Amino acid sequence: MMIGIVNEKVALMAKDNTASSRTVNKDSLPRNIVWILLACLPVCLAWYHRDILGLSIGLSILSYVASDAMIKGVAPMLAEAGRAGTDLNKVGRPKIPESLGVVVGTVFLVTIFLFLPFPFMSWFLETGSKDSLEFPFQRLGEYTAALLSICSMLFLGFADDVLNLKWRHKVVLPAIATLPLLILYRVTFGVTNVVVPIQFRAQLGPIFDLGVFYYLYMAAVAIFCTHSINILAGVNGVEVGQSLVICASLIIHSVIGIFSGIVAVKDHCFFALYILLPFFAVSLALFKSNWYPAKVFVGDTYCYFAGMTFAVVGILGHFSKTLMLFFLPQIFNFLFSVPQLFGLIPCPRHRLPRLGPDGKLHPSEVSFDYHGLSALGQVSVELCIALGLVKEISKCEHDYKHGREMVVTNFTLLNFLLVKLGPLHEDHLAMALLLFQSLCCTSGFFIRYHISSYFFPPS
Amino acid sequence: MMIGIVNEKVALMAKDNTASSRTVNKDSLPRNIVWILLACLPVCLAWYHRDILGLSIGLSILSYVASDAMIKGVAPMLAEAGRAGTDLNKVGRPKIPESLGVVVGTVFLVTIFLFLPFPFMSWFLETGSKDSLEFPFQRLGEYTAALLSICSMLFLGFADDVLNLKWRHKVVLPAIATLPLLILYRVTFGVTNVVVPIQFRAQLGPIFDLGVFYYLYMAAVAIFCTHSINILAGVNGVEVGQSLVICASLIIHSVIGIFSGIVAVKDHCFFALYILLPFFAVSLALFKSNWYPAKVFVGDTYCYFAGMTFAVVGILGHFSKTLMLFFLPQIFNFLFSVPQLFGLIPCPRHRLPRLGPDGKLHPSEVSFDYHGLSALGQVSVELCIALGLVKEISKCEHDYKHGREMVVTNFTLLNFLLVKLGPLHEDHLAMALLLFQSLCCTSGFFIRYHISSYFFPPS
Repeated sequence: MMIGIVNEKVALMAKDNTASSRTVNKDSLPRNIVWILLACLPVCLAWYHRDILGLSIGLSILSYVASDAMIKGVAPMLAEAGRAGTDLNKVGRPKIPESLGVVVGTVFLVTIFLFLPFPFMSWFLETGSKDSLEFPFQRLGEYTAALLSICSMLFLGFADDVLNLKWRHKVVLPAIATLPLLILYRVTFGVTNVVVPIQFRAQLGPIFDLGVFYYLYMAAVAIFCTHSINILAGVNGVEVGQSLVICASLIIHSVIGIFSGIVAVKDHCFFALYILLPFFAVSLALFKSNWYPAKVFVGDTYCYFAGMTFAVVGILGHFSKTLMLFFLPQIFNFLFSVPQLFGLIPCPRHRLPRLGPDGKLHPSEVSFDYHGLSALGQVSVELCIALGLVKEISKCEHDYKHGREMVVTNFTLLNFLLVKLGPLHEDHLAMALLLFQSLCCTSGFFIRYHISSYFFPPS
Repeated sequence: MMIGIVNEKVALMAKDNTASSRTVNKDSLPRNIVWILLACLPVCLAWYHRDILGLSIGLSILSYVASDAMIKGVAPMLAEAGRAGTDLNKVGRPKIPESLGVVVGTVFLVTIFLFLPFPFMSWFLETGSKDSLEFPFQRLGEYTAALLSICSMLFLGFADDVLNLKWRHKVVLPAIATLPLLILYRVTFGVTNVVVPIQFRAQLGPIFDLGVFYYLYMAAVAIFCTHSINILAGVNGVEVGQSLVICASLIIHSVIGIFSGIVAVKDHCFFALYILLPFFAVSLALFKSNWYPAKVFVGDTYCYFAGMTFAVVGILGHFSKTLMLFFLPQIFNFLFSVPQLFGLIPCPRHRLPRLGPDGKLHPSEVSFDYHGLSALGQVSVELCIALGLVKEISKCEHDYKHGREMVVTNFTLLNFLLVKLGPLHEDHLAMALLLFQSLCCTSGFFIRYHISSYFFPPS
């Protein structure tokens, strides 16, 4: 029944998918102003009740409205400036505006800038003008360091969109941008111990100090988060969709933390919420325009921005290990991509699924000379075929025609889903991926709150 | 004699000014590595002696070398990405890479990120891992807030280069980006009093509290600094040149502050120095490529970045009033431009001087119907002509030919210099402006350290 409805919707969309419907309609200014005024209401209410969380929610609603309006306004400007990309999986390969992450990123930054004075309101209202002794500088430092890392990645992402930076720069810069965060972690929390699972305590003791390796781990988390969303991409709505699911999971995790009753945990979880709520709001606005059939592309800008936001929240919220549980699809996609990313198997310029003549997406393929691969490359191919991760396509036929050429599907999560589920419409594939992401996040919660007690019993 | 040498140089340059000499030569990688290794020497020495100022100087030298190498590497990438602008004042109007501010801005940010742990080194070395009570969070907050404002403006500048943003966004965003700085100012220093000149103390008392207006003033300083360098532009080397002169003046002012012996002033001046030294270094590298005949353009990116760096140093260094003394040419240029910027007199798209057939720059002109102007517009024109700020060109002739059309030179400092000095070669005009900037900065010091004692006698 549901599939029937969805199919109908797709048919309608396909019918509607003309050039005119794919351009962004510019809303009239008065309508936007009415929306923004309406969204101001919760802000004023929360302000009146001195409710910081309420204010954060209100500002987030406002940032959703502002993002939605600005995406429509700025998209044509981006296209005019040459920032337009080809939607490869549509008939006619239309050009649509790119790098819209720059808009939602700016709205996000402005929202947090405007929100910034309020967590310190009680200090401003209670103390005199020259008494700076009790001000929570540590908390303000956390906000500014978090925003600094996010802003740096927004800048790097936009530079990458415009310039196509080299991989060596893209890997080093997120780690450098995390330095202020790591300094803050060092001087506020400074814990580099990991609790040893009960099964290994006889050998390692109850606690194992990773020391400087813990900081390297956190820098690696920042690099991984920044890039992992960017490599699980290529289908309308997938980049923002997965970010929304991860963000929702982190919001739930923070709310659980707030109700845990431990004061320090509560503080960190409120900090995480104040960052995550506006992020969710601006991403939702972008999702609306980026979902199939996409009117805009998000660009590297959004992917870097989203990844660094999660890394920042994970590091300063002191739950970088839980964060990784919500990144399971990205970790799987990265590990699965390793043979191609590191050159063991040839990597074509685009690995995203290709549009078939039936209007559905099929897994894209890579062809190579099997015997020309290194031993490690050959093992990777055989292993992935044996595990059913990639599908071997007409080896014999090609053997007969072109000697020893081998054709397999590309090593990405999206192609894997198509191998398992068969050819899918673009929006169905995106839905399948978001469902997979949701399942993984649910498993993440299960691991965090149930299975972990098997390894780390509550003392 | 000097003019003779300069003229010879210009003649040589003009002869050499072929298409091939104007492209950026890509240095060989090994040569760059040798330079970078050489520049690492002072860093290692300072590190060995635990000398933070020495380390800042060493890192600044390194950032100069890195910027110089990266400008050469990234310029062709920017041109390929469509970021190339027309050099209007050259024969043949060549296209050269634009927005190189993005490169030096990134190098600056990376330099400060890498430098960031060192001012806190004594804390890391002295205290245990969990003792976070004594850590100078306030100081770290100042660095992160400063970098956040600078990074935001770098991002805004690059977005403006690519997108040509609207003026209403460009005015509001710097003020919002200054919010973390203003919060920090409020909670650390919080002084909103101004000392009343001795001549007015009978009426106003010795001290006058500006209250919230002081914060509005500081936000206005940030907006003004961000844009004022951008509107005093249009000739090779002028944007970076004026920034270098202002930066040098601020460095001298900070060094004077360090030798003042007052501990609080000393701290702020060291903070200012650690920001200004790498800024000077990366700007110098950009100046090398941007000086006549320019191989690259700096873009709005650099102008916003430079302006916000000065604003940040002025606000957190607690010398925003002295800062304004070094911005006298920019203040003059802004006030002088007001009639055109605010539409009292028509404002053509480009107001930069135009190249004459003699190879020299001549003041550009604007023509309008004098009697069609508002009363305020007419007064502005008459006043500027009477003061000799603009030159009236063939009013009678035009009157005779085209009715009441009036032609005057455009209302900018560069055109004013050409009106006073006569047509000049492009590099001579840039030198004249830098000389004017240096004279104004010298006067700034004179006002700050001599004349001010007439109004504010030392108690």
